[in-house]
Amino acid sequence: MNEKKEVGEKAVDFVKEGMVVGLGTGTTVLYTISKLGKLVQQGFYIKGIPTSKQTEKLAIEVGIPLVSFNEIDHIDLAIDGADEVNRELDLIKGGGGALLREKIIAKAAKNFIVVADSQKVVNQLGSFPLPVEVVPFGFEMTMKHIRELGGSPKLRQKNELPYITDNGNYIIDCVFSELKFPEYLEKRFNMIPGVVDNGLFIGMADIVITLDRDKNITIYKRGQDLIST
Amino acid sequence: MNEKKEVGEKAVDFVKEGMVVGLGTGTTVLYTISKLGKLVQQGFYIKGIPTSKQTEKLAIEVGIPLVSFNEIDHIDLAIDGADEVNRELDLIKGGGGALLREKIIAKAAKNFIVVADSQKVVNQLGSFPLPVEVVPFGFEMTMKHIRELGGSPKLRQKNELPYITDNGNYIIDCVFSELKFPEYLEKRFNMIPGVVDNGLFIGMADIVITLDRDKNITIYKRGQDLIST
Repeated sequence: MNEKKEVGEKAVDFVKEGMVVGLGTGTTVLYTISKLGKLVQQGFYIKGIPTSKQTEKLAIEVGIPLVSFNEIDHIDLAIDGADEVNRELDLIKGGGGALLREKIIAKAAKNFIVVADSQKVVNQLGSFPLPVEVVPFGFEMTMKHIRELGGSPKLRQKNELPYITDNGNYIIDCVFSELKFPEYLEKRFNMIPGVVDNGLFIGMADIVITLDRDKNITIYKRGQDLIST
Repeated sequence: MNEKKEVGEKAVDFVKEGMVVGLGTGTTVLYTISKLGKLVQQGFYIKGIPTSKQTEKLAIEVGIPLVSFNEIDHIDLAIDGADEVNRELDLIKGGGGALLREKIIAKAAKNFIVVADSQKVVNQLGSFPLPVEVVPFGFEMTMKHIRELGGSPKLRQKNELPYITDNGNYIIDCVFSELKFPEYLEKRFNMIPGVVDNGLFIGMADIVITLDRDKNITIYKRGQDLIST
């Protein structure tokens, strides 16, 4: 069973004709985008707005018409993956390096759906190192401030050079021995000058699509119990 | 009387031999940098770390040896101007477009001195439009979120194109009919995805050098009364 495919394709049920859809980045939402592409080929009409250059390329390949922010005044629905999801529907994102654009689009969307295989669901966030996007200028000092918040920061690298985001910034991955009070931490990170944003998505997801222990598709809605399987 | 020259040069009194000094940007701290350059020519030894490409150029011209963040583990003193200063020593900065690097350096410094002519001193911050540095991606949506905070945002332009900061970002200037609760607003701005940082410098300045009504140099220290004239 391909869990990523199951949950990724399930999200398509929430997409209605005519919607402007934020298209996330990663190996799960890839299945959402592929299935949406097939529907578009059959005449289903939507517009997509991609969260990364990688997703932009994929969406063009599968034939989803794209728009940019200056052509729209709202986003109906954003669909994206996550590196961790807890029971409060709070997330860690950014393993793929696209956290900032993902957050901009998730915040702009009326509804934000997260697709996550069962391994992503955790009781407490923080086993996954928290990605933080920082401006290159003074990043050494920014890492020092992150250490003061209790994290062990490490500059993400690619081919022995700093990894560069689509926005021209660096990513610092932060290991916490215990990540308590994520809401507080999200704010503290964003108050460090040099931090552009961080991978904590608190209070943003409206719906999480995942699988339960018996591998049945399970849909969690913010503030409600399980709504369907 | 050239007030900018008076207060700018006065700040040099606080610079001690051997210090790593954060060098601000603008028409007031320009006098600080020029005077420091003269001292360096006479054998006074300091290292400077510039807050903008413009200041870097000036510092090189006047002969101040420069360092970058990877060569130092602290900054002793940062000296910078401001667009507005209130009696609590809180600031609006960013008129010159260098707010992010200025904030990174001010936060990294053990002491932060502000030089401001008497016209910059206000009872309440906010007559000066608040500069906010934002990533270009989705800036239209970011402006929408700024409007929700009560500001009237305007994209800063130069030669009919968006003004680009040293970090490759845009500046949005925000007019508020009344800027109350600046500490709260600084945090709210930084929680908008797409906002890199904003020009509110709350609780950061340790010393403000300005002039009183009789045009005497006046030094305010955080949490203390006037300490000298």
